[in-house]
Amino acid sequence: MQQDLRSVEAHQSMNLTIVRIGIITVSDRASRGEYEDRGGPAIRDYLTEVLSCPWEPVACVIADELELITDTIKKLADNDGCSLIITTGGTGPARRDVTPEATEAACDKMLPGFGELMRKVSLEKVPTAILSRQTAGVRGSTLVLNLPGQPRAIRECLDAVFPAIPYCVDLIEGPRLTTDEQRIRAYRPPGAKP
Amino acid sequence: MQQDLRSVEAHQSMNLTIVRIGIITVSDRASRGEYEDRGGPAIRDYLTEVLSCPWEPVACVIADELELITDTIKKLADNDGCSLIITTGGTGPARRDVTPEATEAACDKMLPGFGELMRKVSLEKVPTAILSRQTAGVRGSTLVLNLPGQPRAIRECLDAVFPAIPYCVDLIEGPRLTTDEQRIRAYRPPGAKP
Amino acid sequence: MQQDLRSVEAHQSMNLTIVRIGIITVSDRASRGEYEDRGGPAIRDYLTEVLSCPWEPVACVIADELELITDTIKKLADNDGCSLIITTGGTGPARRDVTPEATEAACDKMLPGFGELMRKVSLEKVPTAILSRQTAGVRGSTLVLNLPGQPRAIRECLDAVFPAIPYCVDLIEGPRLTTDEQRIRAYRPPGAKP
Repeated sequence: MQQDLRSVEAHQSMNLTIVRIGIITVSDRASRGEYEDRGGPAIRDYLTEVLSCPWEPVACVIADELELITDTIKKLADNDGCSLIITTGGTGPARRDVTPEATEAACDKMLPGFGELMRKVSLEKVPTAILSRQTAGVRGSTLVLNLPGQPRAIRECLDAVFPAIPYCVDLIEGPRLTTDEQRIRAYRPPGAKP
Repeated sequence: MQQDLRSVEAHQSMNLTIVRIGIITVSDRASRGEYEDRGGPAIRDYLTEVLSCPWEPVACVIADELELITDTIKKLADNDGCSLIITTGGTGPARRDVTPEATEAACDKMLPGFGELMRKVSLEKVPTAILSRQTAGVRGSTLVLNLPGQPRAIRECLDAVFPAIPYCVDLIEGPRLTTDEQRIRAYRPPGAKP
Repeated sequence: MQQDLRSVEAHQSMNLTIVRIGIITVSDRASRGEYEDRGGPAIRDYLTEVLSCPWEPVACVIADELELITDTIKKLADNDGCSLIITTGGTGPARRDVTPEATEAACDKMLPGFGELMRKVSLEKVPTAILSRQTAGVRGSTLVLNLPGQPRAIRECLDAVFPAIPYCVDLIEGPRLTTDEQRIRAYRPPGAKP
């Protein structure tokens, strides 16, 4: 981690900002190696396809433990300098699904509009979309976003909310994210400082 | 109550699962007998029409008292073995409307997607649908769902959310609910364990 | 304030009810005079255009300070007799945006349907509508509503939710609000007491 941070500092001193993005796969089975993590790679592929600014992932796979998820979000935000943290998994109604609670515990403020929109777009596909409790929030200058576990649902949700993410990161004083406009058009209001 | 539980155990020992569903009418006036309870019977009629598995109602009519509502939800879930508890009434903005707060106090986790969808479908009928604060949550292996008080609104809301209820009850390790597919098609994702 | 209250009492003793509506502009810059308050006047203009009952505004411009916003909402509700309090500004994800938290701290119960509908209508215009955390709640007999800061968004949001506001104020035992039906049709369910 120290080395990672130094490497970021080195890039910054060369006037290159490399945006760090945390990708947390929350899954008991994947964390024990009983199951291949498909959610984390799906998020990484999506970001590679969509982002046009330099970025690097900080990925991890952890169990569905409330405190562990909260601590991992805090560490990625505070120690690893992630400007955006995306979780996958643990958002359903089952006993072990605690990602939204862990996210709320790590965040200063919540953004209910993300969950509302993601459920709305998923609901066009499956009626069980209402079972998803996924949300988003802000910790300091870091945006934290929950996604479901299924790769197909991950893409649907990201397509829906990504246009608002770069401006959100601007507003919380994070780095400037840019996107491939052929793929996702990041919206910034007219008059927003460039 | 003891007798009811023994009766369920007897059925289970014969390999017959009878799903128990709590129906709580929350209304000061109905609880004092000043007003006929129309919400509770509307829910019962709906379930009779839609469910194809054996089930039995555990119904009660109580006043709009926060602690009483919370305790009744807990009792129906923990002592009476209800897998699904549906409330009617007490979800508006008035001073005595406290059903959502009582539900949250009884639940381990909340499912905001239910309230969002029910308000959305009610909003197609009346602009005052946004005044409803109805929600859903999970206590242990029991799904708790708030509905409004009016029989017409009860049916609209149940039609909207019922397709997701059987799979939700699966996920929280409750019994397998089945529906009359001509009436409501319960959705379970491909690959969900039967 | 004492004088204001006496004036309301005088009107009431003449059998004239003048509805008082609090308008709180939440903005660090406007409160320091560095920026013209445009949100507060936009709300006032809207209400003048839409309400057909006698009403008077109680307006103020305050900084984005959690405790100050909460205290101002409480004062307008409890001391100044406002039946409706509308805030503008401070609903985004930025560090200084704390109006929703301040509103929740001042309210007895929350009405999530307002925020959901306002985000939905704003989302038809801009994808960043999901960043707004605006909500509504009830303190005693007072409805508290958050609006965004931009005058255009203020009108869009009020057009969406205003049809439900007069009946909401009825339900919380506030005064009877009436609207110019050419402009906004206030909905009261058939059978609601006049």
